[in-house]
Amino acid sequence: MASRPTRSAKIRTVRKGRIAGARADRLAVEEPLEIRVEGKGVAVVMRTPGDDDDLVSGFLLTEGVVREPTDIFEITHCRSADDRSREGNVVDVLLHKPETVNFEALTRHVFSATSCGLCGKASIDAVHQSFAPLRARFRIDARVLHSLPGALAKTQAAFRETGGLHAAALFDAEGTLLVAREDVGRHNAVDKVLGHALRKGWLPLDRHMLFVSGRTSFEIVQKALAARVPVVAGISAPSSLAVQFARANKQGLAGFVRDDRFNIYAGASRFAAR
Amino acid sequence: MASRPTRSAKIRTVRKGRIAGARADRLAVEEPLEIRVEGKGVAVVMRTPGDDDDLVSGFLLTEGVVREPTDIFEITHCRSADDRSREGNVVDVLLHKPETVNFEALTRHVFSATSCGLCGKASIDAVHQSFAPLRARFRIDARVLHSLPGALAKTQAAFRETGGLHAAALFDAEGTLLVAREDVGRHNAVDKVLGHALRKGWLPLDRHMLFVSGRTSFEIVQKALAARVPVVAGISAPSSLAVQFARANKQGLAGFVRDDRFNIYAGASRFAAR
Repeated sequence: MASRPTRSAKIRTVRKGRIAGARADRLAVEEPLEIRVEGKGVAVVMRTPGDDDDLVSGFLLTEGVVREPTDIFEITHCRSADDRSREGNVVDVLLHKPETVNFEALTRHVFSATSCGLCGKASIDAVHQSFAPLRARFRIDARVLHSLPGALAKTQAAFRETGGLHAAALFDAEGTLLVAREDVGRHNAVDKVLGHALRKGWLPLDRHMLFVSGRTSFEIVQKALAARVPVVAGISAPSSLAVQFARANKQGLAGFVRDDRFNIYAGASRFAAR
Repeated sequence: MASRPTRSAKIRTVRKGRIAGARADRLAVEEPLEIRVEGKGVAVVMRTPGDDDDLVSGFLLTEGVVREPTDIFEITHCRSADDRSREGNVVDVLLHKPETVNFEALTRHVFSATSCGLCGKASIDAVHQSFAPLRARFRIDARVLHSLPGALAKTQAAFRETGGLHAAALFDAEGTLLVAREDVGRHNAVDKVLGHALRKGWLPLDRHMLFVSGRTSFEIVQKALAARVPVVAGISAPSSLAVQFARANKQGLAGFVRDDRFNIYAGASRFAAR
């Protein structure tokens, strides 16, 4: 199974009601990945192939299953003798201490993963049980945020090809890009970035910023908290629940980070501005 | 519980590293909705409140649980005496024939709803069991597509306020907008539109177009098929699996519908172009 993030397709172009031409176009690849833990299926995500180990590591981190890179013993892509088309789309994770996993809670949590709880209040309470609010007094120079969109755009190779991928990136306090990932799913791009950081031994990410190419949902801010990221920024708007969650957990949250401007929605003290 | 799609928040604006001002901004509201069928929880979705009955109806339609408006007996918002914050965020659906629902299959399907199957091939096969490929020879004048972005933009009140909402709309063959809905989740916006159509008795939508404000994923094309929509169009790019699925089911799929141009990715015979 190819792991390229884009694929060619023949398309026709139309202009002013007329067929203007036929050509090959690049599409963002979307394929399902079944995530198994100790052989038990816990989730199926639609993702762009590539960096599956990062994706799965980030998923398990942000679901509260693992905290340290050594919690993961091995990640293997299952082989299927009778169905070649599934090859590469099933991953099994062996844990260092499998006996500590509460599978019922994991699949129940994953079941509501589009979601994460019964209502704003209940879901925030539930996450507090897993991930404590931040304490570190990390502040970022507001001017550093102005450089993020340009730095991210330079890395978005597949987006330039297809226009069809979300991106997420991790930056340090000086605005140096540490890792960037693309995916058809915005949450997957974040999981890939955080999973990469976990595997590299960079956690806790308490002096870092997470930057996303689109809108910032509750789940993105929650995933950042799981990795202890104190500042989340996005090119577009955050949702009401993302703002509420960031404020409750002392995270800085910036939106509409474009050109030399941005808006601060939560944690104003995280941004050093004159 | 308010059902307004936007909410006010105090923000600070930053320009060139300096605090430029403080003002009230409008945020797209994101809140969880637990969907119950006959009292049993089957899904939790993060959605923008408003049109919950449409959302739930569309969800049940595109999950294959209902086909006719009369399949739904009643949709009620649960009241909670001990937790006011949950009010309005739990919905229970009573069906006309509850004995026909396979709850295990429904929750298993919902469990993999970010997803829908084990691999491209398996998931497409699974959907074929529920929703047959289209047969109707509906064709749409390519020039009609040029008018869709303008027609949709006129209805996007909350997007103009927040910049944070996805939109979906249903058009007839002449380009008349029949219904448009906004949501923080792109799949929810589609479910709201299709659920509205179901409740109005418009199904099958075999002479209609579904238009979405962003990228077109596999799931969006699949939901359209459930309602028998022969043409799906989006302002941005489709994914590889969306194209593969549309081709397998004889759906027309257009992308980058902007100004007087668009690209045809699947079902070229659905578009009447000179």
